[in-house]
Amino acid sequence: MAAQKLKIGIVGGTGYTGVELLRLLAIHPNASIAAVTSRGEAGMPVAEMFPSLRGLVDVAFSDPAQTDLTLCDVVFFATPHGVAMSQAKALLAAGVKVIDLAADFRLQDTAVFEKWYKMPHGCPDVLKEAVYGIPELYRDNIKSAKVIGNPGCYPTTVLLGLAPLLEQSLVDFSAPIISDSKSGVSGAGRKAEIATLFAEASDNMKAYGVAGHRHHPEIHAQLKQLSGNELQFIFVPHLIPMIRGMLSTIYVKLSAKAQGLDLQALYEKRYQHERFVDVLPTGSLPETRSVRGSNCLRIALHPQANGYLTLLVTQDNLVKGAAGQAVQNMNIMFGLNEHAGLEVVPLLP
Amino acid sequence: MAAQKLKIGIVGGTGYTGVELLRLLAIHPNASIAAVTSRGEAGMPVAEMFPSLRGLVDVAFSDPAQTDLTLCDVVFFATPHGVAMSQAKALLAAGVKVIDLAADFRLQDTAVFEKWYKMPHGCPDVLKEAVYGIPELYRDNIKSAKVIGNPGCYPTTVLLGLAPLLEQSLVDFSAPIISDSKSGVSGAGRKAEIATLFAEASDNMKAYGVAGHRHHPEIHAQLKQLSGNELQFIFVPHLIPMIRGMLSTIYVKLSAKAQGLDLQALYEKRYQHERFVDVLPTGSLPETRSVRGSNCLRIALHPQANGYLTLLVTQDNLVKGAAGQAVQNMNIMFGLNEHAGLEVVPLLP
Amino acid sequence: MAAQKLKIGIVGGTGYTGVELLRLLAIHPNASIAAVTSRGEAGMPVAEMFPSLRGLVDVAFSDPAQTDLTLCDVVFFATPHGVAMSQAKALLAAGVKVIDLAADFRLQDTAVFEKWYKMPHGCPDVLKEAVYGIPELYRDNIKSAKVIGNPGCYPTTVLLGLAPLLEQSLVDFSAPIISDSKSGVSGAGRKAEIATLFAEASDNMKAYGVAGHRHHPEIHAQLKQLSGNELQFIFVPHLIPMIRGMLSTIYVKLSAKAQGLDLQALYEKRYQHERFVDVLPTGSLPETRSVRGSNCLRIALHPQANGYLTLLVTQDNLVKGAAGQAVQNMNIMFGLNEHAGLEVVPLLP
Amino acid sequence: MAAQKLKIGIVGGTGYTGVELLRLLAIHPNASIAAVTSRGEAGMPVAEMFPSLRGLVDVAFSDPAQTDLTLCDVVFFATPHGVAMSQAKALLAAGVKVIDLAADFRLQDTAVFEKWYKMPHGCPDVLKEAVYGIPELYRDNIKSAKVIGNPGCYPTTVLLGLAPLLEQSLVDFSAPIISDSKSGVSGAGRKAEIATLFAEASDNMKAYGVAGHRHHPEIHAQLKQLSGNELQFIFVPHLIPMIRGMLSTIYVKLSAKAQGLDLQALYEKRYQHERFVDVLPTGSLPETRSVRGSNCLRIALHPQANGYLTLLVTQDNLVKGAAGQAVQNMNIMFGLNEHAGLEVVPLLP
Repeated sequence: MAAQKLKIGIVGGTGYTGVELLRLLAIHPNASIAAVTSRGEAGMPVAEMFPSLRGLVDVAFSDPAQTDLTLCDVVFFATPHGVAMSQAKALLAAGVKVIDLAADFRLQDTAVFEKWYKMPHGCPDVLKEAVYGIPELYRDNIKSAKVIGNPGCYPTTVLLGLAPLLEQSLVDFSAPIISDSKSGVSGAGRKAEIATLFAEASDNMKAYGVAGHRHHPEIHAQLKQLSGNELQFIFVPHLIPMIRGMLSTIYVKLSAKAQGLDLQALYEKRYQHERFVDVLPTGSLPETRSVRGSNCLRIALHPQANGYLTLLVTQDNLVKGAAGQAVQNMNIMFGLNEHAGLEVVPLLP
Repeated sequence: MAAQKLKIGIVGGTGYTGVELLRLLAIHPNASIAAVTSRGEAGMPVAEMFPSLRGLVDVAFSDPAQTDLTLCDVVFFATPHGVAMSQAKALLAAGVKVIDLAADFRLQDTAVFEKWYKMPHGCPDVLKEAVYGIPELYRDNIKSAKVIGNPGCYPTTVLLGLAPLLEQSLVDFSAPIISDSKSGVSGAGRKAEIATLFAEASDNMKAYGVAGHRHHPEIHAQLKQLSGNELQFIFVPHLIPMIRGMLSTIYVKLSAKAQGLDLQALYEKRYQHERFVDVLPTGSLPETRSVRGSNCLRIALHPQANGYLTLLVTQDNLVKGAAGQAVQNMNIMFGLNEHAGLEVVPLLP
Repeated sequence: MAAQKLKIGIVGGTGYTGVELLRLLAIHPNASIAAVTSRGEAGMPVAEMFPSLRGLVDVAFSDPAQTDLTLCDVVFFATPHGVAMSQAKALLAAGVKVIDLAADFRLQDTAVFEKWYKMPHGCPDVLKEAVYGIPELYRDNIKSAKVIGNPGCYPTTVLLGLAPLLEQSLVDFSAPIISDSKSGVSGAGRKAEIATLFAEASDNMKAYGVAGHRHHPEIHAQLKQLSGNELQFIFVPHLIPMIRGMLSTIYVKLSAKAQGLDLQALYEKRYQHERFVDVLPTGSLPETRSVRGSNCLRIALHPQANGYLTLLVTQDNLVKGAAGQAVQNMNIMFGLNEHAGLEVVPLLP
Repeated sequence: MAAQKLKIGIVGGTGYTGVELLRLLAIHPNASIAAVTSRGEAGMPVAEMFPSLRGLVDVAFSDPAQTDLTLCDVVFFATPHGVAMSQAKALLAAGVKVIDLAADFRLQDTAVFEKWYKMPHGCPDVLKEAVYGIPELYRDNIKSAKVIGNPGCYPTTVLLGLAPLLEQSLVDFSAPIISDSKSGVSGAGRKAEIATLFAEASDNMKAYGVAGHRHHPEIHAQLKQLSGNELQFIFVPHLIPMIRGMLSTIYVKLSAKAQGLDLQALYEKRYQHERFVDVLPTGSLPETRSVRGSNCLRIALHPQANGYLTLLVTQDNLVKGAAGQAVQNMNIMFGLNEHAGLEVVPLLP
């Protein structure tokens, strides 16, 4: 109750992952929001920009140039790509842990990073010790990590959906793995752009990034890591007229070894102790709203007659796909209860 | 921590107010869900119908005929009108408190009830001791109440919006009070009807109930009670293509006594100790999403040049407008922390 | 078939009123799109920006500086306020008619214009001969007009809703006329702004412009014109999560003269020859989608017990509220069939 | 102008395909609506149920038992499965042509029909002469057809998307063809059901029918027909929170023969004379709204590095996916201009 609270810094608090961190941390029992920086909005009370936080978050946005984040225990970067890697070193030197919700610490191959993000990597040495922050895959590393590359929203669905198969060599790599993924519009961020205006994106949908989406190399690298194999991966994301929510429909060819195996049992066993991964009964049809606002990810298996398995994986893109997973990582890094601050019941309807 | 938990019964758990009660009570520190009845779905696990509750609510729907609700401490009726009044007497006799989310205990005038609800009132004696459940208006009575008539969604916005004026005789009743109210579609309930299908109600809006809505007499009676006056009241509700959320735009003529008064200060003072009523700065434009999922109601004042005051009042129709207020009433009736189980941060975006 | 077609110029074709003009004019039997200008998009084929027009509109956006609009028969300005008044004189001199969908020619009082639009009026002399373009009110003037100030979206609903009463002196001006108006988000235009992003405006609503909206003086001036009276007018617009559609709920106190009058008959008679104004049976509840995509405006009367009349008026804000009415004005100005190009059946569902 | 108009009968006019037929036929230059039947709504003016048709459709719903459809030139069945096959024979005997928008005449294999539709086929002999109504594939047969099995919405996207490849043997059938398809909610029909309520289906999405959807056998049979091959087909439909619109994302492995071929040129050539099939430039990202309300279907090719081709195919599920295609079929059957009544510009925004 009177326990010491972690002092939290948030760099870039005006975007959707920023305000989502604030939503979760505002009532986190072990967290205290010390600083929320914003170049553009310095001086404005956070709750003025986000009235949902009135009475819950008292601080004002502060100028990054005048904010000493080294006083924090942990700093979240809810910024565009490239910001965290410019500040991580100094924070680490001051003993501050770093959780980056952008891509700076997700790709270990800096050449791949540079190709997709059009900038050189600013601190390859820090990158080397960074941990890819999916607790259900890398919890032990996260416990001792000082820097977390919090995963992209799409990767979390694809990787947690396929991990049980890949870990057991149950995939036939002669066919590509296909993920047809769908995301709510908040995934595009809180940026003034015509394409995501209500009058453009509502009552409408489309595929995008077919020729190349930044989450493709991230997922591809992790799939190879999990499987220890070269493989082909087709990824088509789609923009869906809903605020939050993500569903990946994954088509994977099973290997001969999978014949006769009880895949449902395999998945249930793999995730039996995971509070935030819920394996539904075979044949279930998860709705995105079943996780709206919560850190839960749900998986359903649909075996096909022809040796393929169709997987349906859903999460809230802003929670398990971003801010919630970041808080989960923080909890692990600091030895807190892993679900502290994450006991949000999904909002349905 | 190891405190005794209230045993909760919910009659009619398959509608939106029912599942909303479950969302809130699932993590209420002082509540334990003992029974959720449903005639149609007896035997089905609650979390099968509402997967958002998987891992959070363990009970199955039970047959009302075979469920002994007298073992509960409190029973919520999230049922159609007429059910609570048929069971209240027996429950009260067994020492169980009753909170009805339908209209059975809202109107003290049984003739008015019969006119609008097309059924005779089943227990006028119980009705007499029932308390109208808006804590910010009737908290003292609620403390000792055994039966609560939980208000309709629209009335809560209009009454809390106008109470500070009415209590101080600041309204000129020579003009009608007008409430142009807007509600999300969940207010129509979880009923299979064509008019509220997605393909009918989306990208569309309309007024309804202009010739007579059941909340009109309820609001009218309470306005008279609060003001001690006869008055005229025009009420036009509208159906808005959003799931949750309610906004009442209220037009009221101020009395001479209001001239020169600082109405903003008056409102702030009236609600200064109310955790769930937030008076915004004069001229604010509250969005419904600023309270999405939470029990908060927000009010903004817009004085007009011509002696009128325009009030904007917003709430989540399922929370402060229904289940959240019901839980708030329960907390008061049982001497719990009034905001126990209601510390939900609004979901934005 | 082989009839001469009007050569049409559109200045500012990249906004919603611009693309809506293109949608209607693309298959207008008497129109040929000669030029669509855009400073920012010069050179891009119109159908590349708006794929809905592929195969229907062949021109590319052209640079305004290099486009000779004097070759057109009529030029529509679908631009920000202030553009039309800078070009109208030269076009008129060349014998080109002008229809401005912005506010430059709506307000005869230039002081009021300057107060609300923060710029001096550029051509008061042209303004004097401009006609306010609601055909059902000013058809005779439109026939011979050279410059049309096409009305704002909100004014069209309020003015056509009230005209039959005002023309017959049936309003009691001791009480303010109140219009509680609701608009779809396309009314905010095709501009990159955070407030109208899908993730901000969806599943959400709010009032806006309560302290002062530019359509207030426009409506007020016209109401005075129609009634020949001073009067008070309260106007509260609301942003509704739908793409198109507008509903004004109007509250008006009837004068003694209205007692016993058959208002329904009055309205039906007033609009009996108007193809685009549909008086519904008394007590009807018009939905915005009932006019989606069409130039129709629908009115329903709801008399109140207390001497007030509630009016429900709906239109598509981009059609009768903007581009459709502009085409209707063009048809009248050039002696065409008034409904040419406007025979679009509303899209329902 | 004074041309003889076809007398049209519509059986089952109260669903979405029914009202969509009415929307299109109301202003079709060669059609006159003779009868619209409805068991439940007999006597009610059509325009009372669908106010969008006020002033455009004058008939009332008539009792099927008292409606002599043999006076019509053509009868559309916008009914549940099983109705058309019970009435087709009598209509044909009277010289009336039949277009069924349900499934009665889509599957030539009656055993497959019975398996999926749980009823014996009522007129196998009529079925034999029925033509599957996709004009771009079977125009010649449609010209002389007396009975049309109008395709399901999903099949039209998949078949027109793949036809150019299948006709030229460019598919490698060692891998399954996968169609990940997305539909707006109107595809579920105008039926009172909880699952498609606004408050359930909005801000939400899900896959459905993964274990078996009725369009699977229909597509499968047609794919075999077009390719002359056995093949495997995986089909996963999804429900998207939009009223109209359909997008199929199709993953297909190309055969060796396709190596080096200019597939874009192949598609453009295949559809060069098709007014309602639009092949977009390679790499385009079609939005569903780009065809909203129109009979157009748009295709974009996305070749993958690994020998796969990803196809994006979009249409309005109620137009090219149902009523529009039915009218197109009618036009062909009666020798009318194929696009008569179908010149609707898509509604964007």
